[in-house]
Amino acid sequence: MASEYKTRTGDDFDRDQFESLLRRKVFMWPSFEPYGATKGLFDYGPPLENLEAEVMNIWRDHFIRHERMMALKCSMLTPYRVLETSGHVAKFADYMCKDPLTGDILRADHLIKDVIESRLKSDREARGEKVSAVEEDPKLKKKKSKVTKTAVKLDDAVRKEYEHLLATLDDCTGDDMGALIKKHDIRSPISGNEVEPPVSVNLMFQTQIGATGKEPAFLRPETAQGQFLSFQKLLEYSDGQLPMASASIGYSFRNELSPRNGLLRVREFLMAEVEHFVDPESGKRHPKFASVRHVKLPLLDRKTQTEGGSTPTVTTIGEAVDSKLVDNETLGYFLVRIMTFMQRIGMDMNKLRFRQHMANEMAHYAADCWDCELLNSHGWIECVGCADRSAYDLMVHEKATGTFMKVREDLKEPYEVEEWQANLDKKKSGPKLRKDQSKVEAALNELTQEMKEKLSITMADKGKVELPVSEMEGGKVELDKDIVTFVKEKRKVTQREYTPNVIEPSFGVGRILYSLMEHVYWTRKGDEARSVMSFKPTVAPIKVLVVPLQKDTRFANLLSELEGRLDDAQLSFKVDQSGVSIGRRYARNDELGIPFGITVDYESLEGKGFTLRDRDSTKQVRASLDEILEAVEKMCKGKETWEGVSGRLPVFEGKVEEEGKEE
Amino acid sequence: MASEYKTRTGDDFDRDQFESLLRRKVFMWPSFEPYGATKGLFDYGPPLENLEAEVMNIWRDHFIRHERMMALKCSMLTPYRVLETSGHVAKFADYMCKDPLTGDILRADHLIKDVIESRLKSDREARGEKVSAVEEDPKLKKKKSKVTKTAVKLDDAVRKEYEHLLATLDDCTGDDMGALIKKHDIRSPISGNEVEPPVSVNLMFQTQIGATGKEPAFLRPETAQGQFLSFQKLLEYSDGQLPMASASIGYSFRNELSPRNGLLRVREFLMAEVEHFVDPESGKRHPKFASVRHVKLPLLDRKTQTEGGSTPTVTTIGEAVDSKLVDNETLGYFLVRIMTFMQRIGMDMNKLRFRQHMANEMAHYAADCWDCELLNSHGWIECVGCADRSAYDLMVHEKATGTFMKVREDLKEPYEVEEWQANLDKKKSGPKLRKDQSKVEAALNELTQEMKEKLSITMADKGKVELPVSEMEGGKVELDKDIVTFVKEKRKVTQREYTPNVIEPSFGVGRILYSLMEHVYWTRKGDEARSVMSFKPTVAPIKVLVVPLQKDTRFANLLSELEGRLDDAQLSFKVDQSGVSIGRRYARNDELGIPFGITVDYESLEGKGFTLRDRDSTKQVRASLDEILEAVEKMCKGKETWEGVSGRLPVFEGKVEEEGKEE
Repeated sequence: MASEYKTRTGDDFDRDQFESLLRRKVFMWPSFEPYGATKGLFDYGPPLENLEAEVMNIWRDHFIRHERMMALKCSMLTPYRVLETSGHVAKFADYMCKDPLTGDILRADHLIKDVIESRLKSDREARGEKVSAVEEDPKLKKKKSKVTKTAVKLDDAVRKEYEHLLATLDDCTGDDMGALIKKHDIRSPISGNEVEPPVSVNLMFQTQIGATGKEPAFLRPETAQGQFLSFQKLLEYSDGQLPMASASIGYSFRNELSPRNGLLRVREFLMAEVEHFVDPESGKRHPKFASVRHVKLPLLDRKTQTEGGSTPTVTTIGEAVDSKLVDNETLGYFLVRIMTFMQRIGMDMNKLRFRQHMANEMAHYAADCWDCELLNSHGWIECVGCADRSAYDLMVHEKATGTFMKVREDLKEPYEVEEWQANLDKKKSGPKLRKDQSKVEAALNELTQEMKEKLSITMADKGKVELPVSEMEGGKVELDKDIVTFVKEKRKVTQREYTPNVIEPSFGVGRILYSLMEHVYWTRKGDEARSVMSFKPTVAPIKVLVVPLQKDTRFANLLSELEGRLDDAQLSFKVDQSGVSIGRRYARNDELGIPFGITVDYESLEGKGFTLRDRDSTKQVRASLDEILEAVEKMCKGKETWEGVSGRLPVFEGKVEEEGKEE
Repeated sequence: MASEYKTRTGDDFDRDQFESLLRRKVFMWPSFEPYGATKGLFDYGPPLENLEAEVMNIWRDHFIRHERMMALKCSMLTPYRVLETSGHVAKFADYMCKDPLTGDILRADHLIKDVIESRLKSDREARGEKVSAVEEDPKLKKKKSKVTKTAVKLDDAVRKEYEHLLATLDDCTGDDMGALIKKHDIRSPISGNEVEPPVSVNLMFQTQIGATGKEPAFLRPETAQGQFLSFQKLLEYSDGQLPMASASIGYSFRNELSPRNGLLRVREFLMAEVEHFVDPESGKRHPKFASVRHVKLPLLDRKTQTEGGSTPTVTTIGEAVDSKLVDNETLGYFLVRIMTFMQRIGMDMNKLRFRQHMANEMAHYAADCWDCELLNSHGWIECVGCADRSAYDLMVHEKATGTFMKVREDLKEPYEVEEWQANLDKKKSGPKLRKDQSKVEAALNELTQEMKEKLSITMADKGKVELPVSEMEGGKVELDKDIVTFVKEKRKVTQREYTPNVIEPSFGVGRILYSLMEHVYWTRKGDEARSVMSFKPTVAPIKVLVVPLQKDTRFANLLSELEGRLDDAQLSFKVDQSGVSIGRRYARNDELGIPFGITVDYESLEGKGFTLRDRDSTKQVRASLDEILEAVEKMCKGKETWEGVSGRLPVFEGKVEEEGKEE
């Protein structure tokens, strides 16, 4: 996939050159480098930090403000019990194998993949086939591998088996992988040692709150649980009305066993998650769906994938929902909003698709799920998951805590039902049951209609019943007819109680930013060394580059006036006063993605205005400072384009910028 | 202090009423409430989350953009070694006492303070003095205290001793506190048991990275360390020029033993920290200091505090720096910027002061420190620390990692020095020293001039020298004259190398937000039940309240047009269509701090515009939708005030809003 990936101008993407730019312009680097760097943790330098801030401001506007969502900030530190209930303690895990001699920990699926891929590669070499570079575990580069590197040819049958194995690896259980490791004699590629059988390792970072040791806790693996536990507050704030949605922008953590691929798999990451609560009986309709029906999306459905296809079908979301390809309006509405968000921040729309999850890859709670995938040099990467989590989370938390987490809805037409009631005479039961009173009451309330009817017969028959109360010693209690009575009563039902279902669009911000950087990266025709980061003005980390024609103290006053005006307009800017040519200065700042350049030259000193340069086209206009600032402000707010500006302001025909050399 | 605290309108501040508002309007609540809440962790609901976002956008604009700082985002998970070097493993700790019978953990200083304060209170009761409510540890309210509650009169001498003890408690070491606990028979107020002597407990949350157990880590206690470790990248981005500043907005963690006072002491908190790097030989001057010289600040200096005073002196920062009251221009410049930031977000300037740290309360690395303190009902609270951390951090990290963390500056006038050099002949030394070659080289480089001269004499004398090399086996090596020579050589010095000093303004965002909420809170004259949160329009969580005069389907179209226009203008809004009177609806939304209300009435249907209502004055104007939206937009950007708007748009004389009842 990597070698097929092209830049926005259709050229081959050179990842080394791209990564060198990210390092050189301090977009990002591995955290704690002076201490030897920590895998899976990255620091963002000024260009990427500012890019993130701009992108997240747009996210807030696009989702929280425009959709009138309830913004929430919940704690990252999360008590053990919360994540035990949600299922994360049991299920948020990967399998690992230990090298018993070195103590190295290897992720089981990575281990199998690496070894089998390297055997297949060796086989292709032995057969004289062309071999493309396979990404290696960086550990292998550092530590000297003891594995033989001689090309070894495989039997055709083995080759086929290996290929099948790789294609089905994602479906394997821990035991399956253990069997594969034994069968194919898969050993640690670092030491050559046999490894222990795979064991499940939880991926949450564990810690404890306070010093007593009584409050074990995790760093949350998703922001969602805090939102679910705030359900009552949200409902109160919404005056009890559904649908309603909360949104959280916050960090989550995942203690990856062997992080890879830079920002695509990290241990600490920013997420933006929406929890949209709907009445399951509403058909999950969305009030604004009509306004997006006509929007076309590239959808790669489950069926196509099963048949081995990977080409999405472009269809309107209206048709997709009508045909039940996309399960419901709410899910469909969010897919459209996700796409328009990506458009708004400048993603390449030819490198975006929505892929439906296969049944076996959905999270344990999900009812349906579509991923927004972005194509980058690592392949198609899941950047937003849009899942229907059904009523799972609210129900398990309600059960675990006894806190009411349902919606009460007044019925338009109340009705009557005839139901069995178990009435406890508390005056009489109190002295007898004492501290168990509430447990007995709860047990009575939980009885089904059938059970109550049954017990009423026993009571009439024997004058006493035996009630199972799991929380009491002995697990049951005997109650006689003085204490409890079973009667069939008419009851007027005026309210309906239900647990809402949840549709959850969940954004991985780091992956989105990384993909965006690849999407906007290109090199000027005829000079591959001149890289450009074409960030949209709305998200560009710095908006304006100020370049005096050359070093000359006569420019000082004008420069400081210009700086003051840019500051007043709240536009971020950078001044490049270094001694090199203007072309060179533009070239090296194109790598930072600064969209506009203002040149101060000798004509500026004579009051003849300034030139304004567009990064992408390198075209320039000349106009007064007022006009230039107005144009830049509008473009940075997305209210005008360079086409508009260059159409209305006089074009400036400077000499052509050639390969970053003298102008 | 609490009882003396007044609202912005001069009324007594009722903390219960205020906290009830925060709960009712879901500004915040204890995290994980359905699981029994976790102390020291809070969730922010929509009003507070949006407030934080607005305040932090202003912070970014005020510091990062305006001061052209380098925005950084560093990892929260931090390897053990980093925080060992910084001194946090050894020194970031509190003393705690364990109750050996119950296992309860009590913070030693809190324990002493609580018990002694309660004895003093009991004494005052016994003497018949008026006793004001002392804030109790919430634990004491929950668990039944076994401590006697009878009023006990103390000897005058004991009373005096107790008062002195409380005043000097902050200066006590762990042993001091242990002695006090013994001397005064201080026992757990929960159980009445004797407690174990104080032991130091580190306040960082510990965890581990990966599954090997080889990478112990902490959650960072401050964002600063990541910034220091990025020093080289920052210097590169700044083209090697100082002064330069980085800025990080991010979370830090502190595993408090017994968190108190809501948002003022929490376990997980947002910080905004600036690290401003200066050349210590520059006198720490600031290029923009001249522009702020005239600004007056309330400064409470060390001397005044020593003399028992608490009234700050209002003086210009120019005078304060000239007189060395504030150590240097850079520190002074930041104090001014901190104050203007507080002004900009709407803090009450009468409740702000800058307090200089006493010598004994400064962090172990700090050279000087001023806190920006905000007055709220809990007293004067440190909300921003502005410390001179000297060169401490860069030096210790350089030493621990061997990474160069200095600035190289070209000298304007290079000069010559004559110096002893130790020259290793690597061809000859290689075979002899082998793997120790680089250690020996390093040891030679570290020799002082005196040592080199001494060794040159020994060498001339004996033909060999003994060199201490601590990292080698035996700790030394013998070198003969074939391998190393000592010569006195002239060297041209063209560069100067120095470790920058760091001035660090560090903002505690939660404390600032909490203080802001108290500062903007007041109740309408004559109706204390009608609370108002007077957030400035620039930071208000929601900008506009839309209220149709009454429930009437004829308003539907106009409402949806209005909503569309507000959305286009990117203004957040809330529609209140509930059945109660307009006055009531305004009153309950004043509690959310919505600054402007647009009423849709029957005249609106006739095309006669809308009324726009100002939250603070409850005054209204009537104008066209275009005029109203333009006015609201300008006010929300801080470009116009209500005074301006009500001066140029026709005033609307509606009936007076009375106590939230019918209009």
